[in-house]
Amino acid sequence: MSSGRENYREDVAGRANVEDTPELLAYYDELEALEAGALWTVANKIEPWEPQSSSVPMIWRYRDLREHVLRSVELVTPEKAGRRVIYLNNPGRREFAAAVGWLYSGLQVMHPGEAASAHRHSASALRFIMEGSGAYTIVDGHKMTLNANDFVLTPNGTWHEHGVEESGSPCIWQDGLDIPLVNTLEANFYEVHPDLRQAVGFAVDDMTKTWGNPGLTPGGGAWDKGYSPLYKYEWERTYEALKRYADATDGSPYDGVMMEYINPVTSGPVMQTIGASMQMLRPGEKTKAHRHTGSYLYQVAKGKGYSIIGGKRLDWQERDIFCVPSWAWHEHANLSDSDDACLFCFNDLPVMRSLGLYREEALADNGGHQPQD
Amino acid sequence: MSSGRENYREDVAGRANVEDTPELLAYYDELEALEAGALWTVANKIEPWEPQSSSVPMIWRYRDLREHVLRSVELVTPEKAGRRVIYLNNPGRREFAAAVGWLYSGLQVMHPGEAASAHRHSASALRFIMEGSGAYTIVDGHKMTLNANDFVLTPNGTWHEHGVEESGSPCIWQDGLDIPLVNTLEANFYEVHPDLRQAVGFAVDDMTKTWGNPGLTPGGGAWDKGYSPLYKYEWERTYEALKRYADATDGSPYDGVMMEYINPVTSGPVMQTIGASMQMLRPGEKTKAHRHTGSYLYQVAKGKGYSIIGGKRLDWQERDIFCVPSWAWHEHANLSDSDDACLFCFNDLPVMRSLGLYREEALADNGGHQPQD
Amino acid sequence: MSSGRENYREDVAGRANVEDTPELLAYYDELEALEAGALWTVANKIEPWEPQSSSVPMIWRYRDLREHVLRSVELVTPEKAGRRVIYLNNPGRREFAAAVGWLYSGLQVMHPGEAASAHRHSASALRFIMEGSGAYTIVDGHKMTLNANDFVLTPNGTWHEHGVEESGSPCIWQDGLDIPLVNTLEANFYEVHPDLRQAVGFAVDDMTKTWGNPGLTPGGGAWDKGYSPLYKYEWERTYEALKRYADATDGSPYDGVMMEYINPVTSGPVMQTIGASMQMLRPGEKTKAHRHTGSYLYQVAKGKGYSIIGGKRLDWQERDIFCVPSWAWHEHANLSDSDDACLFCFNDLPVMRSLGLYREEALADNGGHQPQD
Amino acid sequence: MSSGRENYREDVAGRANVEDTPELLAYYDELEALEAGALWTVANKIEPWEPQSSSVPMIWRYRDLREHVLRSVELVTPEKAGRRVIYLNNPGRREFAAAVGWLYSGLQVMHPGEAASAHRHSASALRFIMEGSGAYTIVDGHKMTLNANDFVLTPNGTWHEHGVEESGSPCIWQDGLDIPLVNTLEANFYEVHPDLRQAVGFAVDDMTKTWGNPGLTPGGGAWDKGYSPLYKYEWERTYEALKRYADATDGSPYDGVMMEYINPVTSGPVMQTIGASMQMLRPGEKTKAHRHTGSYLYQVAKGKGYSIIGGKRLDWQERDIFCVPSWAWHEHANLSDSDDACLFCFNDLPVMRSLGLYREEALADNGGHQPQD
Ligand SMILES: [Fe+2]
Ligand SMILES: [Fe+2]
Ligand SMILES: [Fe+2]
Ligand SMILES: [Fe+2]
Ligand SMILES: [Fe+2]
Ligand SMILES: [Fe+2]
Ligand SMILES: [Fe+2]
Ligand SMILES: [Fe+2]
Repeated sequence: MSSGRENYREDVAGRANVEDTPELLAYYDELEALEAGALWTVANKIEPWEPQSSSVPMIWRYRDLREHVLRSVELVTPEKAGRRVIYLNNPGRREFAAAVGWLYSGLQVMHPGEAASAHRHSASALRFIMEGSGAYTIVDGHKMTLNANDFVLTPNGTWHEHGVEESGSPCIWQDGLDIPLVNTLEANFYEVHPDLRQAVGFAVDDMTKTWGNPGLTPGGGAWDKGYSPLYKYEWERTYEALKRYADATDGSPYDGVMMEYINPVTSGPVMQTIGASMQMLRPGEKTKAHRHTGSYLYQVAKGKGYSIIGGKRLDWQERDIFCVPSWAWHEHANLSDSDDACLFCFNDLPVMRSLGLYREEALADNGGHQPQD
Repeated sequence: MSSGRENYREDVAGRANVEDTPELLAYYDELEALEAGALWTVANKIEPWEPQSSSVPMIWRYRDLREHVLRSVELVTPEKAGRRVIYLNNPGRREFAAAVGWLYSGLQVMHPGEAASAHRHSASALRFIMEGSGAYTIVDGHKMTLNANDFVLTPNGTWHEHGVEESGSPCIWQDGLDIPLVNTLEANFYEVHPDLRQAVGFAVDDMTKTWGNPGLTPGGGAWDKGYSPLYKYEWERTYEALKRYADATDGSPYDGVMMEYINPVTSGPVMQTIGASMQMLRPGEKTKAHRHTGSYLYQVAKGKGYSIIGGKRLDWQERDIFCVPSWAWHEHANLSDSDDACLFCFNDLPVMRSLGLYREEALADNGGHQPQD
Repeated sequence: MSSGRENYREDVAGRANVEDTPELLAYYDELEALEAGALWTVANKIEPWEPQSSSVPMIWRYRDLREHVLRSVELVTPEKAGRRVIYLNNPGRREFAAAVGWLYSGLQVMHPGEAASAHRHSASALRFIMEGSGAYTIVDGHKMTLNANDFVLTPNGTWHEHGVEESGSPCIWQDGLDIPLVNTLEANFYEVHPDLRQAVGFAVDDMTKTWGNPGLTPGGGAWDKGYSPLYKYEWERTYEALKRYADATDGSPYDGVMMEYINPVTSGPVMQTIGASMQMLRPGEKTKAHRHTGSYLYQVAKGKGYSIIGGKRLDWQERDIFCVPSWAWHEHANLSDSDDACLFCFNDLPVMRSLGLYREEALADNGGHQPQD
Repeated sequence: MSSGRENYREDVAGRANVEDTPELLAYYDELEALEAGALWTVANKIEPWEPQSSSVPMIWRYRDLREHVLRSVELVTPEKAGRRVIYLNNPGRREFAAAVGWLYSGLQVMHPGEAASAHRHSASALRFIMEGSGAYTIVDGHKMTLNANDFVLTPNGTWHEHGVEESGSPCIWQDGLDIPLVNTLEANFYEVHPDLRQAVGFAVDDMTKTWGNPGLTPGGGAWDKGYSPLYKYEWERTYEALKRYADATDGSPYDGVMMEYINPVTSGPVMQTIGASMQMLRPGEKTKAHRHTGSYLYQVAKGKGYSIIGGKRLDWQERDIFCVPSWAWHEHANLSDSDDACLFCFNDLPVMRSLGLYREEALADNGGHQPQD
């Protein structure tokens, strides 16, 4: 019987399996008039056996995007555009302007002497610097200088603005935000700074100098915000940490030598909605496949290789960006036998963990490797 | 110029305001081919000034629903239906089967001697008992007896099943779940119990007897799960608590005498994704309006009155269910001068809090009361 | 060779075993002149194989103490005495005025109409009510009415005072404090209230009515002090809790049906330095022996029986007080076959736990029972 | 009347002030026979207005101690002595073998090729390296190489042993332990390793390489022990941290540029009973006086200057050790106008904080400086 109504039946004990009848269809109409419905018609749809992400595995190659990003400088001013950003659209998530899951990402460009106006919002943001010199970010009055592969936070509710010094060169960085998530949770607020510019109230890079020291905290230092006081994580120290850790660990079979960026006060994620990590694939390293809940967006910080994601091989090199959707199998390989490769990743892992929704699984079959399409 | 492309312009400093030109439209086409877009065309849309919920203020009256719920007993068996539930559709959230925001709710009915099969899922669930005697729930081998206005948890990942004793009467309860949230976060897993039934492995109501004592914990008791070990909150004790607290407090101007159900081990929410509260409006009490982020679904546990939500007056009496969408103004009134009224509420407040997204505001104008439509 | 110097030798590999020689003795003199010493002469003394408490197992019988406590009323006024208290001296701890370990305890008496002056100190205190009606305590402006077996806190740094209403009867209660500990840690401060009396600023018993409800917290309630906001734990509810818990548990082999009084906000101890528990020995119950670090002082709240502590049998009845020193074997027995017996205990368990020093051990031999002296 | 009994009277409202009478003295005798006493005779003694430490401000000069420490090599073998250590006796704390308060400290010497046997205890320990090369410590199978000013932990309950490589030079380090505290809390246990030696099971310095990286944790790293997994804090990185932090802070008026060594997982103290810090006094810096509860033992890691402690000036240079007793006023001065001075300190601050006993006060008079004796 074709009724035009949804009815997701499964012939499995414990699952809904009710056939449409004229009586039931009439009943469904009555329920609809009361803004109600019969659960058994949709139960199997809304209680799936396991997640099936609407995002697709995807890579954005820097060689394709870079010229378009640079061209935006000629096309729009920062004043009119707000920020000159080319954002990434996952084919399955276009309606949310999301690169994967509920995460937004874009590439922003600024020329020497330019600055974007200060504002704040409930969404949390990060930057990962791709190229250029002289870039800076100001967060709640703390100014930070930025170089390639530096990772910087502009957390939920902080005033922030970016610019490039007159003495610098054109700069491009990746923005990462939870805008889609905060919007869909109906909790996003936006405010333009009353002066459009912040005053810098502290020594440059003071937060990194104060909070970015191993095993030491500032005497009497107190910090109880929901995000890291270490606003900037410098590449030089991060890379040194990876190399030190590589001396002490066998690494993860799925991720090689992997470290999580943390809030040094809590040892938890850098922000309440966005986590980040940097991992090193040693020369020739090929990892095994696993999968987990949460959405992940990678940028290649160093080296070249490939990842197999959901059975699809994506070859990457420095500055390329690719995603792993929730519950998609994935494994990584470094194609160089002499150099390490480093992958920066930001994700919604803190959301998965805070809400008790994190789950992971190793691929048992085929020596831990996916068959490829 | 009409291009068919989105372009959300605002003539405000710090916001995007770029006019479409043929050159830009061509550029946008090129970006689209790269699975990318220009942020300034959508920035004002994805960064709204404040939340505008897609849910509408809504009431489901028990006198309308009850007969339909009871009728489902004649129409479907528990075996075929899985569970015999009529769920609530917010007009703005039908595609997600949500009653408000990302929260699902339904009314489930069972007859004496019936039982539903055991299963578990990543979604978290609660029940609030509406009528009937002899109902029980089993959670991970702990059996609980249920009476009107009792509140019971079946948390994320626990095996659970429900039934009504042969000696009981037809029972109706409200189910509340975060199914829409867990689905949209792409983290839902579902499993049918291998035996379709659990063995009861503990004294009946043992968790309430063990963990539900004021200011006392079981000696040597340890609990580190993400949810409350106090699976059942009995109405008699809850109502007594409200009356005791009413003796000691002036109450909240927005909520009267309000208490939150908690995990006694952490003093935090009962589950990681769903919070719940019970509030008493004293005879004649009329609260002032405020608003906050998060989605809220109320059931009238006792009494009669009305709430004004988003400027719309909704009159309610015992067993009616109504919602407050995110950031909607709301205020409550008890229409009796002699009896108190009690409102049960479940919500996604723990999500708002864990993710740093909770915000609230009191209505300043008009003596704190909304103008009504 | 007899040198008059300490030298604790043990003939065990890894322990110090250095014989005194004239050369060494001369060397020790030189060290002494520099305010230094040779570790190997004292190492075996200061690094014992296991704790040997300086406290002795001890019982103070109420039938002996009561008349002396009452007689103090004739002998001194509250004004001159500060507080009219007979304190308990453990024979091994007289120099510290301690009943066991670093815990002080005394019996305080007040007549109707009397009141003691308000003060505060770094030491934490508790009361356990023994007899009489009309007693009250005021803590930081919160007044509490007290009855037999009620347990009340006057934590570290809070203004407190006690009295008995004109309409009451002579009252006796047990005081418990960590005065010896706080003194030996050189951290005790004392202050007399500038007005000698506090104003009562809240509804009587408001803290118990607000925070003493199972599974519920006051809406918007916030509490971040180091001690419980539930200043008073009422006997009626405590005894009911024990009976409920007894229905749900087999109990501990060492302690019967035991519950810990907690700070409801943290589920941790009631104060940072003092913990407390109430345990029920079911009719005829005889527990097995175990031992643990920490010092424990018991008061018999109900019933009669005996405890074997460090091999010594101590028979007790209602209101008797006895102690278990650190690392002493102990086991308890209820001598009634029809009635339960209840033991109140306060201790320094929170100190042991906070400092990582808690350790426990069950007696393996002899069916878990101590041989008696 | 001279009775021979204690009676601490004060003529202050709210304090005990009871004159001895024949009747009272007889009463006191009766109480004594019951192992009891009258509180009012000792109340003013056991409830002092503020702490008066039994420790005295004290300095141990390395030029005095060093030769004695080295001479012990000729006098005793490690096998017979257990460890070759000269410990520091505070004149007020000799009975506890304590350098200040409840803290023990000693100087240990080892020659190349020597090793001490492995053991463990409930007391927590640390080392601060003073001179020599080739020293190592093994903690639970993790081997660490040690150089001057390195700070290393051997926490409560861990197997540990020390030695100097054959290729090294004679090494001296400072031991710091809470032995007196753990003894007085009657919670100390001691165990010799069954093999007298541990097997090394990890890469050398693996814990520092894994956990000692700023703002980064090992992926999937979990650590829930009560002490820091970062067993060794290297001087080079610590000094670099101080210099970085000095660029970002004005420093503390009482302590100059001060950082606390922390457990990187919790941001709390390195062990549950012992905290540690390193502070830099900038060239010519003279701090103001303050005081706080807790006991503090300093070693001069670099430079020369003086401290005024309890009104007494103590001049110090590199490797000298001095103490600040609880609640003693103290201030520090760097006597060089060109070089910084660095003070290492270990203390019982974690005990003060965990137990709610920390209190501090700035000196208001005399521009914040103490009058000197
Ligand atoms: Fe922004
Ligand atoms: Fe992964
Ligand atoms: Fe379910
Ligand atoms: Fe509200
Ligand atoms: Fe007191
Ligand atoms: Fe015990
Ligand atoms: Fe040791
Ligand atoms: Fe200090």
